Amino acid sequence: MKQSQIFIPTLREIPADAELRSHQHLLRAGFIRQMASGIYSYLPLATRVIRKIEKIIREELEKLNAVETILPIMQPVELWQTSGRQHTNNKEVFTLQDQHERKYMLAAAQEECITSLVRDEINTYKRLPLMMYQIQTKFRDENRPRHGLLRAREFIMKDAYSFHDTKASLDDMYNEMFNAYASIFTRLGLQYHAVIAESDLIGGKDTHEFIVVSPNGENVFAYTPHGTYAATLSLAEVNTVYETSEEPMRELTLVATPQQRTIEAISEWFDMPKKLCIKTLVLLVDGDIVVTLVRGDHDVSLAKVKVLLQAHTVALADEQVVAEVLGCEVGYVGPIKLPLDIRVVADHAVLAMRNAVAGANESGYHYQFVNPERDFAINISGDIRYIQEGEVSPDGATTVKFGRGIEVGHIFKLGTVYSEQLAAIITNEEGQQTALQMGCYGMGISRLVAALAEQYHDDGGFTWPKHLAPFHVHLIPVNIQDEVQLGLAEDMYGLLKSYHFEVLIDDRDERAGVKFTDADLIGLPVRVTIGKKAAEGIVEVKVRTTGETYDWQKEELIDKLTEMFRN
Amino acid sequence: MKQSQIFIPTLREIPADAELRSHQHLLRAGFIRQMASGIYSYLPLATRVIRKIEKIIREELEKLNAVETILPIMQPVELWQTSGRQHTNNKEVFTLQDQHERKYMLAAAQEECITSLVRDEINTYKRLPLMMYQIQTKFRDENRPRHGLLRAREFIMKDAYSFHDTKASLDDMYNEMFNAYASIFTRLGLQYHAVIAESDLIGGKDTHEFIVVSPNGENVFAYTPHGTYAATLSLAEVNTVYETSEEPMRELTLVATPQQRTIEAISEWFDMPKKLCIKTLVLLVDGDIVVTLVRGDHDVSLAKVKVLLQAHTVALADEQVVAEVLGCEVGYVGPIKLPLDIRVVADHAVLAMRNAVAGANESGYHYQFVNPERDFAINISGDIRYIQEGEVSPDGATTVKFGRGIEVGHIFKLGTVYSEQLAAIITNEEGQQTALQMGCYGMGISRLVAALAEQYHDDGGFTWPKHLAPFHVHLIPVNIQDEVQLGLAEDMYGLLKSYHFEVLIDDRDERAGVKFTDADLIGLPVRVTIGKKAAEGIVEVKVRTTGETYDWQKEELIDKLTEMFRN
Repeated sequence: MKQSQIFIPTLREIPADAELRSHQHLLRAGFIRQMASGIYSYLPLATRVIRKIEKIIREELEKLNAVETILPIMQPVELWQTSGRQHTNNKEVFTLQDQHERKYMLAAAQEECITSLVRDEINTYKRLPLMMYQIQTKFRDENRPRHGLLRAREFIMKDAYSFHDTKASLDDMYNEMFNAYASIFTRLGLQYHAVIAESDLIGGKDTHEFIVVSPNGENVFAYTPHGTYAATLSLAEVNTVYETSEEPMRELTLVATPQQRTIEAISEWFDMPKKLCIKTLVLLVDGDIVVTLVRGDHDVSLAKVKVLLQAHTVALADEQVVAEVLGCEVGYVGPIKLPLDIRVVADHAVLAMRNAVAGANESGYHYQFVNPERDFAINISGDIRYIQEGEVSPDGATTVKFGRGIEVGHIFKLGTVYSEQLAAIITNEEGQQTALQMGCYGMGISRLVAALAEQYHDDGGFTWPKHLAPFHVHLIPVNIQDEVQLGLAEDMYGLLKSYHFEVLIDDRDERAGVKFTDADLIGLPVRVTIGKKAAEGIVEVKVRTTGETYDWQKEELIDKLTEMFRN
Repeated sequence: MKQSQIFIPTLREIPADAELRSHQHLLRAGFIRQMASGIYSYLPLATRVIRKIEKIIREELEKLNAVETILPIMQPVELWQTSGRQHTNNKEVFTLQDQHERKYMLAAAQEECITSLVRDEINTYKRLPLMMYQIQTKFRDENRPRHGLLRAREFIMKDAYSFHDTKASLDDMYNEMFNAYASIFTRLGLQYHAVIAESDLIGGKDTHEFIVVSPNGENVFAYTPHGTYAATLSLAEVNTVYETSEEPMRELTLVATPQQRTIEAISEWFDMPKKLCIKTLVLLVDGDIVVTLVRGDHDVSLAKVKVLLQAHTVALADEQVVAEVLGCEVGYVGPIKLPLDIRVVADHAVLAMRNAVAGANESGYHYQFVNPERDFAINISGDIRYIQEGEVSPDGATTVKFGRGIEVGHIFKLGTVYSEQLAAIITNEEGQQTALQMGCYGMGISRLVAALAEQYHDDGGFTWPKHLAPFHVHLIPVNIQDEVQLGLAEDMYGLLKSYHFEVLIDDRDERAGVKFTDADLIGLPVRVTIGKKAAEGIVEVKVRTTGETYDWQKEELIDKLTEMFRN
């Protein structure tokens, strides 16, 4: 491709509205342009990268016999109402009306659509398992779109849906898809973790996020360095064993603590370390009040409470509810003398506390020398707190680290969440009527471009790997007014193309400096410069990632480049 | 691919809501399903056909150095307002608001978007010509969606846009694209006409529609059988020469014609053939009153009036306007004694009329023995009427026929319509500031599926050509309980795949009749049946289009099929 015929609007200045270096590079190297907040045009270079990503995804999915389909972007609102997904009131879903005032939503996901399709056509286990996927533009009305393609409002996704007669079949497919994702990210050359995740919105359980490691990512997770375990922070398993102090139990004492409402304040007031204060949080779990207890130096994970109590919704109770039920301010809530019908859920660590401080359920007062079991009852104990970096790993073999990255994939076992709502019933092998088992598998393609941009860049621009670069070779005649240079460049262009190299030839009448700066920005793996040595039949080759340069005879170019690309 | 693992929901019944046979087949053969009026899911078979169409389109466009891009579907309304395209009030454009109450439209076309992109980045002729294309879902809120994929509200299009420094460059690209379209439709095996078309909405001129011949199409056009000329009816050139009667002019006579308002009534009232009555139509041309005259047996083409007068808008004046300006009812309007400032435009045929009848511009009266020039003046005469089937062709060599078909492509020379509105200015080779010359080139991909379905079917189902069929071979073990049959089928499946045949194997435990009916519906080019002769190593081959059948030894299958597919 001639650079004069492709649209690569490079920028000299660093765009003021882009924080991340990778986002700046995507703008500066002419890969993308913003049309409106969180809405981007993918220019030709980005489109070429996207096509290469898509090809890898298709190849890996088709190994699983996934079949491609194209579902509608406009979704009738009624369909989503049937599924119980109350997205009509969800601010993040774009809605619109047609000229007959019928309401639609722009697809952010398509479980309802595909479940209703399959429901209407498949009624026997004999047509299962079935896996369909599509690659499509999706929409989400982010309140605050940011970081370019990382959090956009219009984005490209691969979404796949699987249908099964049994849980075992779903489990198998889930594992196969897990492996397919691993293959895809490995082929993309991305450093990633498969992280045990919350399922929240979609309503299923058993779910993994695939997170590409990046200091600029918004997802934080805990992992073991040897790669055996990774989980989102809110779910990372705590395996710490707590020892109870040998100190004798002292007498429970009510102490006035005016204006002391936080763990920090109480810790100071009593001159006790935070780990000897009980942190009490009042939650609404599926609408019921639940009191949770963790150590003062720990934090409650609502996600873990949700799993422990097998609940649908878990939220903090607001001040009014607390005042109504417990008769005190939030800062003075504690585990002692709670109404009988309120469940108390304590973290393992609380059980080992001795002579602790806790709220008195009376505004302005705390108890000192509080001891679990002696002073208060616990309905359920379990792991309900956030892990801390450096704690022991779930397998006990090492300690966990915290990582940060970009979520590029998310796979779910939906089970029968949608099929039950939408009455997608089949006859199973035993002749019984049963709801379809479902899985869903998302992958953010435009976000993958951002993740790749994060991973493959340096200060000068991109450093695309060979199989994802928009072109393989950047061929640069330094001076196109020089007939010898231009002639040799055109010869090499034809030759490289005949060997199926994808070549971008910079045929612009620009200064060498401009061409080289643009070439570094665009970041093709190999730059072949045709300059003053053209008269001697020498071409100058530069490897973008390492900066290595070679002077090669023009006759050597194909062989040596082929060798370089085969490695 | 195993048929048990792909989603092909065939139907026995003919769907009640589908009129066209091709649409019925798309539903019955499990290619598509409707999700809402004019909104379809493309199931795996249709998706495979679409991918093959797209591949052909990409290959042909890339020969022109067109570069692929992906533009946003959500378009800020402000952008369209800038271009003067008043689509915010257009019922056919879907609009929506985000959570911050900013307004967007779902792209029906993207001239504004890409013009603003190019305007911001390109300011010199040196980066031109430039041709960008994309393949994307588009939206149009059709008042009455119909005929399945033919007139849908969500559809897949290829749209391309070219940018030039000169008209000559645009002309060249337009011709290249014209040829690329011809190559694409030829490769798709479609019988089509490139038809001179109206440009209406988009505002440019010089435009062709590509219409695939189909008795069920909505587009009517005139063409010459030897293929030298085709035009949409409203623009097809009339080349007929009219002779004036030798009859002497008689005296102009006012005649009372109560309640006689139509050409039919007047013709009867005066006992004169329609061709001796003058049909007078009052138009609003760019807001001004224009009176047009055609022969009573002819019809005015507003499109031709628009071209003749180089106008932006042409519409019929309503009764009130006519009453106000001419002081009479619409049915009594005529060319005589019109106010001086009203332009009179007559068709060539009117000039040759002698002793005709015409309205008197007085309700209830007509003139008899009206003669042009003697009785009324004509400001402009020209070809302003619809052609009739059988009239002489523009080159005079033959007569025109009328055809009917499906519009699958439309190419436009936009000129500077958008670039002027959006201030997309470049410096040309002479150093002058000039507005970009633009072309745009649309092709309906989902509509092409419908057009192909129209062309390639019979009563039993589809008859896909080899290069567009979802798979090449339908391999059918008649009885999968029979180990010999299943074994041979699996061997053949592996063998065919190893030779890169795309094979759909019907591994369902269904009766032979069901399998064969489904196979005919789906319409793959070749059916290979493994039945009772499997024990003798014989496979039965049936060609879908011709119905020819062969018994081949299994060892012959690859060679003979390869030969068949190479032809």
